[in-house]
Amino acid sequence: MTTEERLAQKLAELQLKMPAAATPKGLYRPVLVVDNLAYTSGHLPFEPDGRLITGRVGEGMDVDAAERAAMLAALGILATLRAELGSLDRVRRVVKLLGMVNCTPDFTQQPAVVNGASRLLADVFGTKRGVGARSAFGVGSLPLGVPVEIEAVFEIEK
Amino acid sequence: MTTEERLAQKLAELQLKMPAAATPKGLYRPVLVVDNLAYTSGHLPFEPDGRLITGRVGEGMDVDAAERAAMLAALGILATLRAELGSLDRVRRVVKLLGMVNCTPDFTQQPAVVNGASRLLADVFGTKRGVGARSAFGVGSLPLGVPVEIEAVFEIEK
Amino acid sequence: MTTEERLAQKLAELQLKMPAAATPKGLYRPVLVVDNLAYTSGHLPFEPDGRLITGRVGEGMDVDAAERAAMLAALGILATLRAELGSLDRVRRVVKLLGMVNCTPDFTQQPAVVNGASRLLADVFGTKRGVGARSAFGVGSLPLGVPVEIEAVFEIEK
Repeated sequence: MTTEERLAQKLAELQLKMPAAATPKGLYRPVLVVDNLAYTSGHLPFEPDGRLITGRVGEGMDVDAAERAAMLAALGILATLRAELGSLDRVRRVVKLLGMVNCTPDFTQQPAVVNGASRLLADVFGTKRGVGARSAFGVGSLPLGVPVEIEAVFEIEK
Repeated sequence: MTTEERLAQKLAELQLKMPAAATPKGLYRPVLVVDNLAYTSGHLPFEPDGRLITGRVGEGMDVDAAERAAMLAALGILATLRAELGSLDRVRRVVKLLGMVNCTPDFTQQPAVVNGASRLLADVFGTKRGVGARSAFGVGSLPLGVPVEIEAVFEIEK
Repeated sequence: MTTEERLAQKLAELQLKMPAAATPKGLYRPVLVVDNLAYTSGHLPFEPDGRLITGRVGEGMDVDAAERAAMLAALGILATLRAELGSLDRVRRVVKLLGMVNCTPDFTQQPAVVNGASRLLADVFGTKRGVGARSAFGVGSLPLGVPVEIEAVFEIEK
């Protein structure tokens, strides 16, 4: 199965449609390619209907909801990447993720939240190519009040 | 116009002088080049007279002041880069920025703050080469109490 | 002296043993190599006996204790890197560090804390190859309640 086929299967399973590629919230590009690496900007989580997901983990939002938000942010990254490359089949592998979780100071399960993004990428690219390095940490606040922001680096076919 | 010429024009317009290249606040180098990429350290904002800008957005510092601080941090990055490369004309493009904003938990306009850095780079390198990927997020505290810290990666001529 | 010899000397001096390579706390790899760069995941600090170090700087934990935690997180990075490469002698240089410090909002000495990691790397790889670019910042919370998390990029022999 190709990556695009696995993505189609995954979207059907999750009953989701591919979102539109992200619109920058400031003066930056959603993704920038240098040589064989694609650097994506930090992506925010959007519901399938286009609404932004807002909230703070540990303050009215639980781990499951935040994990789903991380998955949707990663889906936005895939939409950005496909718009840039034409097809996700040109992605060779996930290199690294940076996962920022908007949470209360006593919250310590950032890895569980960011797993929502990691799991989607592992499912779409396969475990061998879809699991890379990662850092997850808690932040005091995020753009537009979202619970999670995900930045990624991918290796691509030149 | 070359990049150095555009920078001179921009500095005249802002009535600013090029600052001295940054002095490390710890055991690190202001910039490290590997192959065709220059990785800069997180840069703090300094006034043209050398004074460090301190403050916390949402707590006595507004977005405009923080945006200006982000611009000055980016100017420091340019000074570092020029000291390393000899001339900014050797910079091929901005690859990515990481913008950390020291702010209260209810602040959500981190992109507007980091735009101060992005706008300077877009003006100096041009929109095509000066706008890259970016992540902006809010942090609980920053070194020496500054409102913003900016890290950047550039592609350079080898 | 080779890097491995310098590490052995440093461990003897600190009366420490090399820890086991890190076990992922989520769906990621401790390190991912692309071409001549090794990207490590964010590493947490463990005591030599395997206990995780927890705490928050400025709230019952002082700079010295946090600096030691940063050193131990960096030691974990070296263990991960050696497990991946076979020998640390294959590391050409430190490219960059990202140092996240879990601290109270009024804490401003993040660079002093992250120096604990930087000093170990400078000692093991030598100042010329062991000191790279770096960003340090304060976060509101970290995975499992640790005081510091360190992510690193290294250039390696292919």
